[in-house]
Amino acid sequence: MTQGERALRADAERNRRRVLDAAGELFRERGLEVGVGEIAEHAGVGRGTLFRNFPSKEALIAAILVDRMGEAVDFGQALLESADPGEALFEFLAEIVGRQQVDRAVFEAVADIWLANDEIRAAHAQIVGVLGDLLARAQEAGAVRQDIGAMDVLMMFKGVCEAASAFAHIDSEIVPRHLDLLRAALRPDAAAQPLRGRAPTLEDVERAAAKAGVKPASATA
Amino acid sequence: MTQGERALRADAERNRRRVLDAAGELFRERGLEVGVGEIAEHAGVGRGTLFRNFPSKEALIAAILVDRMGEAVDFGQALLESADPGEALFEFLAEIVGRQQVDRAVFEAVADIWLANDEIRAAHAQIVGVLGDLLARAQEAGAVRQDIGAMDVLMMFKGVCEAASAFAHIDSEIVPRHLDLLRAALRPDAAAQPLRGRAPTLEDVERAAAKAGVKPASATA
Repeated sequence: MTQGERALRADAERNRRRVLDAAGELFRERGLEVGVGEIAEHAGVGRGTLFRNFPSKEALIAAILVDRMGEAVDFGQALLESADPGEALFEFLAEIVGRQQVDRAVFEAVADIWLANDEIRAAHAQIVGVLGDLLARAQEAGAVRQDIGAMDVLMMFKGVCEAASAFAHIDSEIVPRHLDLLRAALRPDAAAQPLRGRAPTLEDVERAAAKAGVKPASATA
Repeated sequence: MTQGERALRADAERNRRRVLDAAGELFRERGLEVGVGEIAEHAGVGRGTLFRNFPSKEALIAAILVDRMGEAVDFGQALLESADPGEALFEFLAEIVGRQQVDRAVFEAVADIWLANDEIRAAHAQIVGVLGDLLARAQEAGAVRQDIGAMDVLMMFKGVCEAASAFAHIDSEIVPRHLDLLRAALRPDAAAQPLRGRAPTLEDVERAAAKAGVKPASATA
C-alpha cells in the first residue's frame, strides 16, 4: 500500500466512524426515525459517503450494534483481570444492561433479526464467550453455584433487560434490584436445591432463535 | 325476564362459548391466521352470530385471553386452600407458564396492547391479586423471603415466560429449570443479602406499560 492509499483508507475509516458516532447519538436522543440526511449532516459527511458505507438504515443500525457489542466484549475481557471474580461477573451484567438502556432503540430494532446478520451473530457469540469465561472464574472462586452455564445466566439476564426496558424510566432502582435477585439465584448455597434440566448451550439458543424466526402471522381480521 | 327470554339468553351464551372454544382450538393448532369463516363453521354457528359476538378478530382474541386469565385466577384461588403455601405459589406460576405456552399465539398477540383493553387489564389485576395472596401465604409460612412483592415475582416470571416461548420447543426442561432458579432467588435465606430498591406496585407496572405504549418508530431507511 502506498502512502497515498494509506491516507485514503484512514480517511475512509474516519468518515465511517463519524457516521456511526453521529447516528448513535441522534438515535439515542430521538429514536430511529431520524433521517439519513440529518445523520450525514451531523457527521459532516456527504450523503454519498454515508450510503457508500451503509447502503440502508438497517445496515447502519446493525453496524452501531456490532460496535456496541464489541465495546462490551472489551469491557468483559478487561474484567477477566479483576481481583474479585464474583463481583466482575455482576459488574459485566450491570454494564451490559446499562448499555442496552442507553441505546435502547438500536437494541430493540434488532431483537428479532440478530441471527440473520452474520456480524451481529458473531458479536453475540463473543459476548457469550466472555460471559462464559467470567462465569467460570466466579465459579472457581466459589462465588457462584457450579450447576449453571453461561446461557442460563443470559436467559435470566434477559428478564432483567426486559424489566429495564419496561420500568427503568419509572424506577431507576428496578435494574439493580433485579440484578440482586439474579445474583441470589446464583448463590453457591442455593445449589443445595438442585435444578431440573441441563444448562443450555449457545447452539441450543441459536437453534431456538432460528425456529422462532418463523413467527405466527399477526392478528388481522 | 320471561322463560322465552331466558332461553334466548342461554342460547346466545352457548353460541358465544362455542365460538370461543372453536377459535381457541384453531388458533392453538394453526396460529392466528385462521379465518373467521372457518371458525364459525368449526363452531357450528353462522358468520352473523360470530360477528354479533365478536365484531373483529381482535375482539375474539381478547375474549379468549380474558377467558384464559379467568381460568388462571380460579386455579390460583383454589390453590389458596392448599396445605403447602410455598408449593402452591410455584404451582401457580408453573400453571400460568404452561397455559401461556399452549395458547402462545393468543398471548403474544396482546403482549403490547393489554393496557388498552379494560377487560384484559381487569383480568391482569385479578391475576396480580391472587398472586399477591399466594405470595403472602408463602411468606407467612416462611417459604419465601419477606422483602419481595408480587410485582417482583411477576417481573422475574416474565423472564421465565420469555425462556419458555423461545426454548420450550427445543428443550422441555428449560421452563422447570428457570422456575427452579426463580425459586432459588426467592428463598428466605437469600434475604441475608438485601435487595436494592423497593418492590414495584401494580400501579407502577400499569404506568410503565402506558408509557411504553409510545414506542419508537421501527427502522426504515
